[in-house]
Amino acid sequence: MGKIKKIGVMTSGGDSPGMNAAIRSVVRTCAFYKIECAGIYRGYQGMIEGDFIELNARSVKGIINKGGTFLKSARSKEFMTKEGRQKAYDQLKKANIDAFVVIGGDGSFTGALIFNQEFGFPVMGIPGTIDNDIEGTSHTLGYDTTLNTVVDVIDKIRDTASSHNRLFFVEVMGRDVGHIALNVGVGAGAEEILIPEEDLGLERLLESLRRSKQSGKSSSIVIVAEGDKTGKNVFELKDYVNEHLPEYEVRVSVLGHMQRGGSPSCFDRVLASRMGVSAVESLIDGKSNLMVGLISDKIAVTPLEKAIKGQSKINKELIRVSDIMSV
Amino acid sequence: MGKIKKIGVMTSGGDSPGMNAAIRSVVRTCAFYKIECAGIYRGYQGMIEGDFIELNARSVKGIINKGGTFLKSARSKEFMTKEGRQKAYDQLKKANIDAFVVIGGDGSFTGALIFNQEFGFPVMGIPGTIDNDIEGTSHTLGYDTTLNTVVDVIDKIRDTASSHNRLFFVEVMGRDVGHIALNVGVGAGAEEILIPEEDLGLERLLESLRRSKQSGKSSSIVIVAEGDKTGKNVFELKDYVNEHLPEYEVRVSVLGHMQRGGSPSCFDRVLASRMGVSAVESLIDGKSNLMVGLISDKIAVTPLEKAIKGQSKINKELIRVSDIMSV
Amino acid sequence: MGKIKKIGVMTSGGDSPGMNAAIRSVVRTCAFYKIECAGIYRGYQGMIEGDFIELNARSVKGIINKGGTFLKSARSKEFMTKEGRQKAYDQLKKANIDAFVVIGGDGSFTGALIFNQEFGFPVMGIPGTIDNDIEGTSHTLGYDTTLNTVVDVIDKIRDTASSHNRLFFVEVMGRDVGHIALNVGVGAGAEEILIPEEDLGLERLLESLRRSKQSGKSSSIVIVAEGDKTGKNVFELKDYVNEHLPEYEVRVSVLGHMQRGGSPSCFDRVLASRMGVSAVESLIDGKSNLMVGLISDKIAVTPLEKAIKGQSKINKELIRVSDIMSV
Amino acid sequence: MGKIKKIGVMTSGGDSPGMNAAIRSVVRTCAFYKIECAGIYRGYQGMIEGDFIELNARSVKGIINKGGTFLKSARSKEFMTKEGRQKAYDQLKKANIDAFVVIGGDGSFTGALIFNQEFGFPVMGIPGTIDNDIEGTSHTLGYDTTLNTVVDVIDKIRDTASSHNRLFFVEVMGRDVGHIALNVGVGAGAEEILIPEEDLGLERLLESLRRSKQSGKSSSIVIVAEGDKTGKNVFELKDYVNEHLPEYEVRVSVLGHMQRGGSPSCFDRVLASRMGVSAVESLIDGKSNLMVGLISDKIAVTPLEKAIKGQSKINKELIRVSDIMSV
Repeated sequence: MGKIKKIGVMTSGGDSPGMNAAIRSVVRTCAFYKIECAGIYRGYQGMIEGDFIELNARSVKGIINKGGTFLKSARSKEFMTKEGRQKAYDQLKKANIDAFVVIGGDGSFTGALIFNQEFGFPVMGIPGTIDNDIEGTSHTLGYDTTLNTVVDVIDKIRDTASSHNRLFFVEVMGRDVGHIALNVGVGAGAEEILIPEEDLGLERLLESLRRSKQSGKSSSIVIVAEGDKTGKNVFELKDYVNEHLPEYEVRVSVLGHMQRGGSPSCFDRVLASRMGVSAVESLIDGKSNLMVGLISDKIAVTPLEKAIKGQSKINKELIRVSDIMSV
Repeated sequence: MGKIKKIGVMTSGGDSPGMNAAIRSVVRTCAFYKIECAGIYRGYQGMIEGDFIELNARSVKGIINKGGTFLKSARSKEFMTKEGRQKAYDQLKKANIDAFVVIGGDGSFTGALIFNQEFGFPVMGIPGTIDNDIEGTSHTLGYDTTLNTVVDVIDKIRDTASSHNRLFFVEVMGRDVGHIALNVGVGAGAEEILIPEEDLGLERLLESLRRSKQSGKSSSIVIVAEGDKTGKNVFELKDYVNEHLPEYEVRVSVLGHMQRGGSPSCFDRVLASRMGVSAVESLIDGKSNLMVGLISDKIAVTPLEKAIKGQSKINKELIRVSDIMSV
Repeated sequence: MGKIKKIGVMTSGGDSPGMNAAIRSVVRTCAFYKIECAGIYRGYQGMIEGDFIELNARSVKGIINKGGTFLKSARSKEFMTKEGRQKAYDQLKKANIDAFVVIGGDGSFTGALIFNQEFGFPVMGIPGTIDNDIEGTSHTLGYDTTLNTVVDVIDKIRDTASSHNRLFFVEVMGRDVGHIALNVGVGAGAEEILIPEEDLGLERLLESLRRSKQSGKSSSIVIVAEGDKTGKNVFELKDYVNEHLPEYEVRVSVLGHMQRGGSPSCFDRVLASRMGVSAVESLIDGKSNLMVGLISDKIAVTPLEKAIKGQSKINKELIRVSDIMSV
Repeated sequence: MGKIKKIGVMTSGGDSPGMNAAIRSVVRTCAFYKIECAGIYRGYQGMIEGDFIELNARSVKGIINKGGTFLKSARSKEFMTKEGRQKAYDQLKKANIDAFVVIGGDGSFTGALIFNQEFGFPVMGIPGTIDNDIEGTSHTLGYDTTLNTVVDVIDKIRDTASSHNRLFFVEVMGRDVGHIALNVGVGAGAEEILIPEEDLGLERLLESLRRSKQSGKSSSIVIVAEGDKTGKNVFELKDYVNEHLPEYEVRVSVLGHMQRGGSPSCFDRVLASRMGVSAVESLIDGKSNLMVGLISDKIAVTPLEKAIKGQSKINKELIRVSDIMSV
């Protein structure tokens, strides 16, 4: 592998706040090292179509604080085929791109890994997803912003809940992992938190709500991760509680896609900036197949293979803290 | 009717941002005029139960910027009966309350009017509802805050929409009136706005979306008021568009109760302060059965009867502006 | 004067939130009526230099919610000379621009008026300034956003003030008019408000602060407009109060330029959209020398000459409301 | 030392966002373990005066999201004397308080340590300060919130800066440490960051600004920590640059006390909750003289003595990242 002269950067999979800041960092680090940089639109699909744009330090001004991704993101079925990947490789070669940085989640990393194995093409990953479900980093890019967005919304819902003495079930993102639910649950002072990792049982939920009522709480918030273990979705939970605890007036709120958007928090902007520098410097140093992560507050790399297989565990201490807080 | 010595204040019906600021204003205006003031908890239900609290100028410090209502709100079936209202009257008399100010919507005003007719009890209304659906005021209390809350959320949704080239149907509050939908639609740059007042027809929606696609728009937001005239709810609209315009990837977001909460805007805080002063001064001046409103930027009163019967019309100019903006 | 085929749009003077939304509206209204549109960079200076950009409906996507002005703004000494204006006229003619819309304050309007008088060139004004100091509109563009920005900051300062039982003097913008000070003062629950329009006297300030202390208030906020009438700036006021009321621990905060920035409120976005439509339609209708404003919630035009000479008066009712609220 | 039956909790020194959440956590953890809890108003001064309040789980509802501290904070000269501390001890004994948790910075911890040495009274510390300047924790309580507050304000200032092609010097908190300056500088995309830890030299600043101008940057933000090493304050810096780089139009903004306030971020709310649990459990376990901190994302304790002496170092990697980003 010769010297890197031009690096491609793209965002892939679901968008997350901080992706623009990470693109900016990759572009400016390239400029700093006098390497060319190309933006690849719409992830692997744009790669296949050769949908590239030359980027210099000035191209990325004014985007560090913008949500979403100006390079856009997409899922590509074609890239899952050998033919698709060959096309992508040809496009990269044609554009003189020597390596790429992909900002996304496990699916995006798997694509990069296969691509590297087939073509020996240097790749680096930056974990951009709000779910914080990737091993090898304490924080994925966008996760911190999403926590703030969600507690802010739940604060608003609580205004209404406590004005009317109501019980709200609030569904937050997290199909496989409960990081968001657990942290916003503690951060917003929820009475109960239902996550994919643990089935506390519906009986416990009723018990807890009964106790709340007795202890004089006039309103309650229960946070439910999309993939919670009770086997009931948030509307079924409402019906269940309505039936068993008619003394509660229950409402449901499904937060949905707004959890992904918004201006990134300072933490996510700084993290994106650090990760972009490390990703480009790793490629310059001849490394590949690594994900840049944050471990014990320091930037560190993890093999993409490990990042894909693993899944960051929830912090069980937080379950205990939540139980104590809802005394 | 003798001199007013003690005024009651309460919030009733759905909560809205600025209710606390209005309570504060009523309380402080009473203090200014050396009149006693009692807070009535949980609207008419608390009135029937005699759930009162003495309030002085210091009781309401630090609440001007808080969402919801610390006096809480509720709907009362009992108050709809003659017996219920008699109990309420007895409680007020027992507590030496001579008049009350109710902060709420038409339902709450209807209750006040009947109560006045039966017992000759002086009442004043402050229009507190996010829907802006009351005649006699250009702005109900909380409406301006809700507009800001909603455009802020749609800005976030647009981050995701434009990152993925998607079409979003966003349902906002407004069962009978389209004020919120129309204003946030223009304010957030929506491509189409579906409101209860006008049935633009589903064919026009499809036509507009087709044109958007052709004109190079990569993502679109359609705002749908709860009570839109198409006869389809937001999920049915999604299915309809999916079927007829398969080139669009459609998503739905139902904003729900978070639209009611949050710290009031400067406008709503000032409006609440002005309305509270006027309501108390009207009672002191021997007036009754009036709603305090904002007409051409000035505080003005309207008979409760008129406020209840009428409904503020949407501004048709905005429909035209929206059409031009989505060129 | 023949038919308008191409309209120029620019921002001039101090920036205000909503300017981008107004540019977008002018551009899209032109597109709607199939008229060409050119952006003029850096106000009159860019006009003199022929610093123009062709704008179509898609050029202005994604800017309705952005603070500042992407066309940038500047003050131009050269435009104050006959030669400068002649150059500007030549540039406009060369670019086939038939009329322009200027978004700015009185200074910008004066320039437009002189230009029209000299060259018979059609001009329209949109009042973009946070100060709300222009006659012919109840709200200038950006004013509502600034009120929200400022009360939000004062809420934060109050957290500290009340944690430490302190008195804060907070300086807000407003050299000649007290609109911002008066509204944020009421909205943030300030104890006193010092504005350019009225000299309440320093003795009254001391008296009021003494009374606050006696009535049990533990912290206080005093809002001071830049151009307040006491003849003392905010630091001198601090020293004065420190000397006369040593029982207070006094702090000062000068809010400065952050008051101008930020994403516009829903109100300002809607207002900008309405004003842009009206400005372009007025030019198409053969009108000139007018400012688009909001009067009694309706869009209405005022001769530029009148807008420049007059100055919107503060609402004296608010002074009374503020006095009652700080009982 | 017998079994702990009643714990006191207080806030001391400058307030920081999350203090209320930490108080809530201490109170609820006490309730969980069926220990009594007393709030101590105004820090050590309130302790000396016996200004206590009994707190139960319900007393602290609705405060997790509030800035400031409802127990208020103060500095106490009297507590620096042996007599003052003796009075404080007598008051605690009289109120049957067996141990206390102090939320504050080094000064507050020093007081706690001396008090423990003199009276053998069990004490625990929670690091509540926005400066992040305490050894033994990667994050002090309030620091994360302040970073978000400050980048949000700088985003607003940048709107104006880039609309007018200006250079802004923005002064942020940090008398002895540059954590805030360094992180918001990277997070807000500042061109230069001046911190107390390093004197980059004024010549380098000029050089950097000259390069910015040449590279086509139209506006610039320079972040200056209160205690920066250049020996010039932010106004002197402005004059210096004005003199040497007349091509720049320079403005100054001093952010001041608003940096301390506001609703805590999700991170700070969760951190506060975790720290409160650990502090109370440590006391129950018979421990004392420790500070609860976050080390590598885990809750861990550090001797107060070590926390006081040390000072957390800035992350030099961030200086490098900042240099690369402003290429």
